[in-house]
Amino acid sequence: MTDAIRLIEVKEAVFADNQEVANNLRASLKAENTFLLNLMASPGAGKTSLILRTIQALRDDLQIGVLEADIDSTVDSEKVAAQGIEAIQLKTGGFCHLDASMVTTGIDALDISALDLVVIENVGNLVCPAEFDTGSVKSAMILSVPEGDDKPLKYPLMFSVCDALVVNKMDYMELSDFNLDAMRERVLQLNPGIKIFPVSCRTGEGIAEWAEWLRGEVVAFTNED
Amino acid sequence: MTDAIRLIEVKEAVFADNQEVANNLRASLKAENTFLLNLMASPGAGKTSLILRTIQALRDDLQIGVLEADIDSTVDSEKVAAQGIEAIQLKTGGFCHLDASMVTTGIDALDISALDLVVIENVGNLVCPAEFDTGSVKSAMILSVPEGDDKPLKYPLMFSVCDALVVNKMDYMELSDFNLDAMRERVLQLNPGIKIFPVSCRTGEGIAEWAEWLRGEVVAFTNED
Repeated sequence: MTDAIRLIEVKEAVFADNQEVANNLRASLKAENTFLLNLMASPGAGKTSLILRTIQALRDDLQIGVLEADIDSTVDSEKVAAQGIEAIQLKTGGFCHLDASMVTTGIDALDISALDLVVIENVGNLVCPAEFDTGSVKSAMILSVPEGDDKPLKYPLMFSVCDALVVNKMDYMELSDFNLDAMRERVLQLNPGIKIFPVSCRTGEGIAEWAEWLRGEVVAFTNED
Repeated sequence: MTDAIRLIEVKEAVFADNQEVANNLRASLKAENTFLLNLMASPGAGKTSLILRTIQALRDDLQIGVLEADIDSTVDSEKVAAQGIEAIQLKTGGFCHLDASMVTTGIDALDISALDLVVIENVGNLVCPAEFDTGSVKSAMILSVPEGDDKPLKYPLMFSVCDALVVNKMDYMELSDFNLDAMRERVLQLNPGIKIFPVSCRTGEGIAEWAEWLRGEVVAFTNED
């Protein structure tokens, strides 16, 4: 583990009212004008890669921090810290999602008054994280091309609760029978307002559009009364 | 939905002792000489594709049935039923895993006296399913190449509880920096006895070795006292 990473073990606050904790966290982040993004996806869809690309695209405009959830490793936070970005590793033990208490613990470890944007990398899971309000302003998810275009049919809640869908690994399209139009239609049926960004974190394709959307959301949030 | 599929909605038996239910199920399956395999993986790793390939490889030797878990669709069981194989769709609602009670409900819907092998396609999730004994004789998991070779570091319990690991989408290797040796070393450190089968469900590469291992396990189980 590098020196730049702080590791915090978090436990689920089973008795707390998650919604209340989430609302309190949102209010305290608003008071500091810090935008919180909850990023969710399957294992290996490219959450850390997207975070690294987003840092690259927005670091000149925004002060960014990252909360990395992981069951039992610090692999991801080391990659983020290597970019000189403050990364808090939330070690969830066996837990399959982050709740608002865990995120609050992580946020408390950051100097949020100095940050415009904090990105949560949630646990790699298309099911459980969709059920918990983390206190974020917006939620985004990644679906990677090799996972298949039928995933909205199979994990509808996740696709329903997100404000943005990043379709990653577009560079795998040539090897895949992934049908972007069919996927898009399935997603829009669940969630007509969702923004969809086809990208490749490897080649950088599409990252500018995604980053521009996120930057616009942060700016709009900051200018809100 | 085709006529060949039966859809059963299952609910978590929160008050039941899962281990006891699992042991009872295992005993009743043993009495019928029916081998139960629990197949787990991330969303989109290729669970249904592997089941279809396994059916193709073993259907002349073994009578096979399939329990398909899905949160909210019948996509997978339709594909299995199209092969003339009996498929029960277990609709889990929002649940993120199958427990032994849900599997018992599915098994009760099959004529197990006529079956040598039942494969459970668990919910697409590398976290929660690893924690629940389903009553199976053996557990297997799939890791697909696009997910990355670091997954054993991040989801150690899943890699620890499985008897076999199928590394799917080997045909994506050319586009990937996946290091098979590094992955193998990480997995064997967690689970020295695990069998590892690199395959491509698309091309058929490696399927024979996997199917032969599974056939051997079923035969050994059937010949046990």
